[in-house]
Amino acid sequence: MPASRDADDVQYNNSEILDPRIRQRLKHDAQGLVAAVIQQYDSKEVLMVGYMNDEAVRRTLTTGRVTFWSRSRQEFWRKGDTSGHVQYVKSFNLDCDGDAILVEVDQVGAACHHGTRTCFLSGGPLPVVVGTRSDEEKSI
Amino acid sequence: MPASRDADDVQYNNSEILDPRIRQRLKHDAQGLVAAVIQQYDSKEVLMVGYMNDEAVRRTLTTGRVTFWSRSRQEFWRKGDTSGHVQYVKSFNLDCDGDAILVEVDQVGAACHHGTRTCFLSGGPLPVVVGTRSDEEKSI
Repeated sequence: MPASRDADDVQYNNSEILDPRIRQRLKHDAQGLVAAVIQQYDSKEVLMVGYMNDEAVRRTLTTGRVTFWSRSRQEFWRKGDTSGHVQYVKSFNLDCDGDAILVEVDQVGAACHHGTRTCFLSGGPLPVVVGTRSDEEKSI
Repeated sequence: MPASRDADDVQYNNSEILDPRIRQRLKHDAQGLVAAVIQQYDSKEVLMVGYMNDEAVRRTLTTGRVTFWSRSRQEFWRKGDTSGHVQYVKSFNLDCDGDAILVEVDQVGAACHHGTRTCFLSGGPLPVVVGTRSDEEKSI
């Protein structure tokens, strides 16, 4: 198991480009992107999923605001610039293999451009067969 | 804003293949996949991110267990089959444009194959500049 990294242990230099030590930990897709899950820091609602390239990661780490790379528009997109629905960064974690990011934010207003608090409220639920733990699994 | 869909409103037929009405709502990437965020239903921890093709979506909706498509191994992967760390499905939501899924689950044991409860605890935090709401934004 990789050692848990404490945010205060290491000093990175993201002043011009994303620090190469961070870049090396990212596992980019064919478009150079990593999926970013955006979660409200206090209520823990999952607000949306966006994508970041290295520069979007750098801006998100260094400016207090979440920046994405828009796959459809092929441009940087700082959440809230047109809508006012800003995402203030509270924490930033990589996953175990570097192909996903979890950003905890304070979301001003609606995260979804359709006006709902989260994009998953806008899309809505599908009916599922619900699974339940076995008796043996209840203490795990 | 799209009407919020109630899971009880529509009857889908996922018995052989994913119902075409669901398939049409998915926005697949070039590999035919959609990103799936897996969240513990009660604590709201974000456990991991995986990817699903149409058949993995169908299995997840109909079996009570989360099934992914492994991009590295190019095969279906039912979480917990080798580790015992099963994910029991509690709910399934699409996002507004159908390119992300949020599955609430009951996770038995560790979600991460490195043994931590979530894959983001294994990857660990990076230092961030924390952003804060302006006075005007405090009531939004």
